[in-house]
Amino acid sequence: MTTKELRIGLIGGGRIGKLHGRNINTSVPGARVLCLAETMLNDEHKAWADDVGIPKVTEDPGDILNNRDIDAVFICSPTDTHADFIIQAARKGKHVFCEKPVHTDIQKIKAALAEVDKAGVKLQVGFVRRFDHNHRKVRDTVASGILGKPHIVKITSRDPEGPSLDYIAVSGGIFMDMTIHDFDMARYLAGSEVTEVMAYGAVNIDPGYRKYGDVDTAAVMLKFENGALALIDNSRAAHYGYDQRTEVHCDKGCVQAVNDLNDTSMISAAEGVLCAKPTWFFLERYNNAFIAEVIDFVDAVNNDKKPPVDGNDGMMAVYIAIAAGKSLKENRPVTLGEVMA
Amino acid sequence: MTTKELRIGLIGGGRIGKLHGRNINTSVPGARVLCLAETMLNDEHKAWADDVGIPKVTEDPGDILNNRDIDAVFICSPTDTHADFIIQAARKGKHVFCEKPVHTDIQKIKAALAEVDKAGVKLQVGFVRRFDHNHRKVRDTVASGILGKPHIVKITSRDPEGPSLDYIAVSGGIFMDMTIHDFDMARYLAGSEVTEVMAYGAVNIDPGYRKYGDVDTAAVMLKFENGALALIDNSRAAHYGYDQRTEVHCDKGCVQAVNDLNDTSMISAAEGVLCAKPTWFFLERYNNAFIAEVIDFVDAVNNDKKPPVDGNDGMMAVYIAIAAGKSLKENRPVTLGEVMA
Amino acid sequence: MTTKELRIGLIGGGRIGKLHGRNINTSVPGARVLCLAETMLNDEHKAWADDVGIPKVTEDPGDILNNRDIDAVFICSPTDTHADFIIQAARKGKHVFCEKPVHTDIQKIKAALAEVDKAGVKLQVGFVRRFDHNHRKVRDTVASGILGKPHIVKITSRDPEGPSLDYIAVSGGIFMDMTIHDFDMARYLAGSEVTEVMAYGAVNIDPGYRKYGDVDTAAVMLKFENGALALIDNSRAAHYGYDQRTEVHCDKGCVQAVNDLNDTSMISAAEGVLCAKPTWFFLERYNNAFIAEVIDFVDAVNNDKKPPVDGNDGMMAVYIAIAAGKSLKENRPVTLGEVMA
Amino acid sequence: MTTKELRIGLIGGGRIGKLHGRNINTSVPGARVLCLAETMLNDEHKAWADDVGIPKVTEDPGDILNNRDIDAVFICSPTDTHADFIIQAARKGKHVFCEKPVHTDIQKIKAALAEVDKAGVKLQVGFVRRFDHNHRKVRDTVASGILGKPHIVKITSRDPEGPSLDYIAVSGGIFMDMTIHDFDMARYLAGSEVTEVMAYGAVNIDPGYRKYGDVDTAAVMLKFENGALALIDNSRAAHYGYDQRTEVHCDKGCVQAVNDLNDTSMISAAEGVLCAKPTWFFLERYNNAFIAEVIDFVDAVNNDKKPPVDGNDGMMAVYIAIAAGKSLKENRPVTLGEVMA
Repeated sequence: MTTKELRIGLIGGGRIGKLHGRNINTSVPGARVLCLAETMLNDEHKAWADDVGIPKVTEDPGDILNNRDIDAVFICSPTDTHADFIIQAARKGKHVFCEKPVHTDIQKIKAALAEVDKAGVKLQVGFVRRFDHNHRKVRDTVASGILGKPHIVKITSRDPEGPSLDYIAVSGGIFMDMTIHDFDMARYLAGSEVTEVMAYGAVNIDPGYRKYGDVDTAAVMLKFENGALALIDNSRAAHYGYDQRTEVHCDKGCVQAVNDLNDTSMISAAEGVLCAKPTWFFLERYNNAFIAEVIDFVDAVNNDKKPPVDGNDGMMAVYIAIAAGKSLKENRPVTLGEVMA
Repeated sequence: MTTKELRIGLIGGGRIGKLHGRNINTSVPGARVLCLAETMLNDEHKAWADDVGIPKVTEDPGDILNNRDIDAVFICSPTDTHADFIIQAARKGKHVFCEKPVHTDIQKIKAALAEVDKAGVKLQVGFVRRFDHNHRKVRDTVASGILGKPHIVKITSRDPEGPSLDYIAVSGGIFMDMTIHDFDMARYLAGSEVTEVMAYGAVNIDPGYRKYGDVDTAAVMLKFENGALALIDNSRAAHYGYDQRTEVHCDKGCVQAVNDLNDTSMISAAEGVLCAKPTWFFLERYNNAFIAEVIDFVDAVNNDKKPPVDGNDGMMAVYIAIAAGKSLKENRPVTLGEVMA
Repeated sequence: MTTKELRIGLIGGGRIGKLHGRNINTSVPGARVLCLAETMLNDEHKAWADDVGIPKVTEDPGDILNNRDIDAVFICSPTDTHADFIIQAARKGKHVFCEKPVHTDIQKIKAALAEVDKAGVKLQVGFVRRFDHNHRKVRDTVASGILGKPHIVKITSRDPEGPSLDYIAVSGGIFMDMTIHDFDMARYLAGSEVTEVMAYGAVNIDPGYRKYGDVDTAAVMLKFENGALALIDNSRAAHYGYDQRTEVHCDKGCVQAVNDLNDTSMISAAEGVLCAKPTWFFLERYNNAFIAEVIDFVDAVNNDKKPPVDGNDGMMAVYIAIAAGKSLKENRPVTLGEVMA
Repeated sequence: MTTKELRIGLIGGGRIGKLHGRNINTSVPGARVLCLAETMLNDEHKAWADDVGIPKVTEDPGDILNNRDIDAVFICSPTDTHADFIIQAARKGKHVFCEKPVHTDIQKIKAALAEVDKAGVKLQVGFVRRFDHNHRKVRDTVASGILGKPHIVKITSRDPEGPSLDYIAVSGGIFMDMTIHDFDMARYLAGSEVTEVMAYGAVNIDPGYRKYGDVDTAAVMLKFENGALALIDNSRAAHYGYDQRTEVHCDKGCVQAVNDLNDTSMISAAEGVLCAKPTWFFLERYNNAFIAEVIDFVDAVNNDKKPPVDGNDGMMAVYIAIAAGKSLKENRPVTLGEVMA
């Protein structure tokens, strides 16, 4: 393994950008963020950069893209800018870590992946849940083959609270914004490609979702090439905490993982037995996974390995999300073939 | 409460008939089986009847239906005989406990229910899982309203081993034979009527299922009048034991129940931590529920109450099973309206 | 295996006598209670006997002891009558099932065991917890040797509510009345004999215990011949239910068992996660164990096997209880040798 | 809250010193290690210091004690040097974080505490388990009073593997080296002072312990001023991982916490149900607690608060360990009064 430090430029100083920035500078050996580019730069960004040891801040992403001292770019800006930044970074020979989804427009994604290919740089997409200790154990068990072929994949994914309706207006809909993680997880767990999608949705929590043609509750079934079936359920309101469970039923048995809890306590009294709640949201549940995915990205770049989640993974999840949206709208099963044509 | 003993005639001496017969004579106060009618009567039936204290056995169900000392009939014969026996029993003024499904032919069911109505006798259908302590706790929590309106219903139902292919040939298909329990459970948990069904199926375990147009793995989604969505998954092969779990996610929280286990042991060693398996099959998991449903039936008869699972419940589950079969065949969502028309 | 029915006489119609009587007549194949002898016989006893199918009731235990049609006697009368009834039954050639403790007076026990030996009848003592599915799994795991030699035995045993102070006055003290089950369990789990006892006690629940020199909270340590150490904790007030847990830490790992619960439900809400409570008390937790111990007794008698809990087991537990009482009183470790001398 | 950075000198570059050094420089805001003093300094220490950003290393602790730029000292050197370093640091007006045990010699501890008092500096002792999320939840529940008065405290503490016999030779014995954590935990959970100790011990794992008069398996009972009783069990060999469980049974109920696991997976197959093992050892289990205790120390210094574990806490645990050693040796209960006299 090489010991050269990977020099990183961070585009986007929002919640997820800050998360990566802090993680890289405190918990990822062999990598360092040299610059934050944030078009809406303010004092708070500057203070944060200072606190986590990022020496430079700028309003201009070009300061990163054109900086020859920067080896890799983390794209944490709004989704509709992802593809363009990937293209620019690739042309400058920089490796790319891009948050999910790669983009909502398949043609844009294809153009970006082509540029990445041409440049021979690494591209990793931020499907962080693959790096969670629980889901990974489920997947590794399936992949080991000890349980035989997968038959049924189950994913429960519920947020403790929904985003603002302002965000819903621009989110791309529940399948592109939230379920896309589950679509990637389904492919990851099943070890096979999705062939068909059937999506149900409902507005059970906040009537405001209707205004944007979106739903706050969803149930989705998938068919896979290998014969497996998947069932996914989503809710924008699990007031008890982030509910993230996975399960694969196979030929010879079943593997499942439940939530991480705040602690392992149990209080028994006449009124009942009280246990700890799940961790609150993704910062609590997936922080170690966020670190692990970056460690793997650094390893892929420094040691010329295939990134663990690549551009094709990013694109396939978008295809499934598009099919799910079409299925919900037309109330019929939609094949991947239809949307990939 | 009256103390008069309910005198029961048992039609059908197969596995489920014997189960009820033994339970009634050992564990149901205020009821007694006086006669077993089994058209294929053999010595084994006679020995069994003697052992559990049933004084009379016969090959002729008429000996029960025409016996004025018998108050109620348990119909545990093959499904295609159910409706006729209900009709005959009702005409003789006898109360009826009928195993699931009531019948596979809706017209036959309607005729039977009409006769029951006319005679003013009680009819209970054997959806035993409603009486399981775990599922009941889930339903009671939802019904109490403390969690608000249900949004998502999840049911996992997997048998440890499939029946013989001979049985598959006459079973009516997985939805009528196996998932029908889950369709009833979904209505029970959601407290609402199903409006639409989408069914996926696969043959993952035994290619022999294809010969009969059946599947061994199924995933089903339901829509309810109250806006809830349900996801059901079935497998004919859960080699670790009977996998019977239910969950309802609601406005204010989620209630779920997992399997009963053989014991509560945990063995921790360098190789891993080993826990007990779920109970093996329905005899182990639902035996107390089988007793509880009969106690409630006896109570309904003796005290003139509405049976906890009535003829309409029996018919609705059959409608959903028919819609599911149609959905699987035509690969599209099927409304209940379509099949009820 | 012989098929002759074992004819049983039941001495004592209190709570535990009724428990055995009903179990034998409904759930133990090959055995039947023919007669109940209860010196304080009342109408309630008669109605109960009628209900469970015991044809005869009497005030005179002699009606059982002298009845040549009776093969075995269940002694469920007050503790201070146990030894005498054992002796009389043995002299009449009757097998004996005796509730715990055999007696509180070691000389009486020795006399009774000698008579049993001389008569060649079977004697089983009612340490029912050995037949619980959870504790048995712990013991079987240890006995199998897969974890190697036992090092530490842990037993938690807490009643949901204490008995009346009137009962405390005559109970023989917590060690003879309550912990005696744990002393037997400790021997059962460790597979070794106790050599020394150190007992701590406290009155934390009800000051009334002081009046009788008793305690309501206890902690006991035991040393075993095989080098293992045991820790037992008792409370007379676990308001959440019957708390009965066992654990053995061994060379290669640890096996433990926790409580049976009322159901497997989990209710997750903003306020917390609520699970089911343990079963309430011994009738709920150990009913299957009560049946299993009698099935084994019947088997031992009918097939001339050693009873699974014999007279020596009964006596050893009493020795340990005596040593514990002495330890508490004198605040020092007491060897079994001291009290057995 | 002041924003001045706390400048720390680290004495001792062994396992625990490195743990604190790395934590402070990566995960404790407002504090920074400026210097490592290690009398056996080698290249590995230098590389480590460089890696975690400690600018200076030295063989001479005096370089820390005499450095006016250093505000606080972390004492992570061998136990028999603790008291002297505390005294020297206090005389120089430096705050002190001292690893457990403070010292094994009570007179030395008293001298150190007197010097700390005189200097008016802060002293915190490294009983890290108080900062574990699980144990803390147990304690907070008890301290909240919702369960009433504590009756029984149970602590299980087992290491996955014992230290080398070379270490055993100088460890001070199991009670001073290992159980001392549990003695502190018992005081923390019970919220009361220990009055008496009874200790049992055995050599079950490695006969080599006998040579040093030590044991590898221990069971200890404690009495508290408030009437509670405690039971502690220890083993030097829990091959399944670090076994760290606590429980307090109270007037109105019981609170307990079990181990953190590597993940939440469950693999169900015909052979059994396999779950994840506990985290391996203290680095895995208590890393967050190690960070939390230092954050609290920094807060105590910067904001002039009482440290959460003070010198008296450190001394009381040593008294109990001394009493336990005496109890084991003399096989009798030993009061704290005896050893404090």
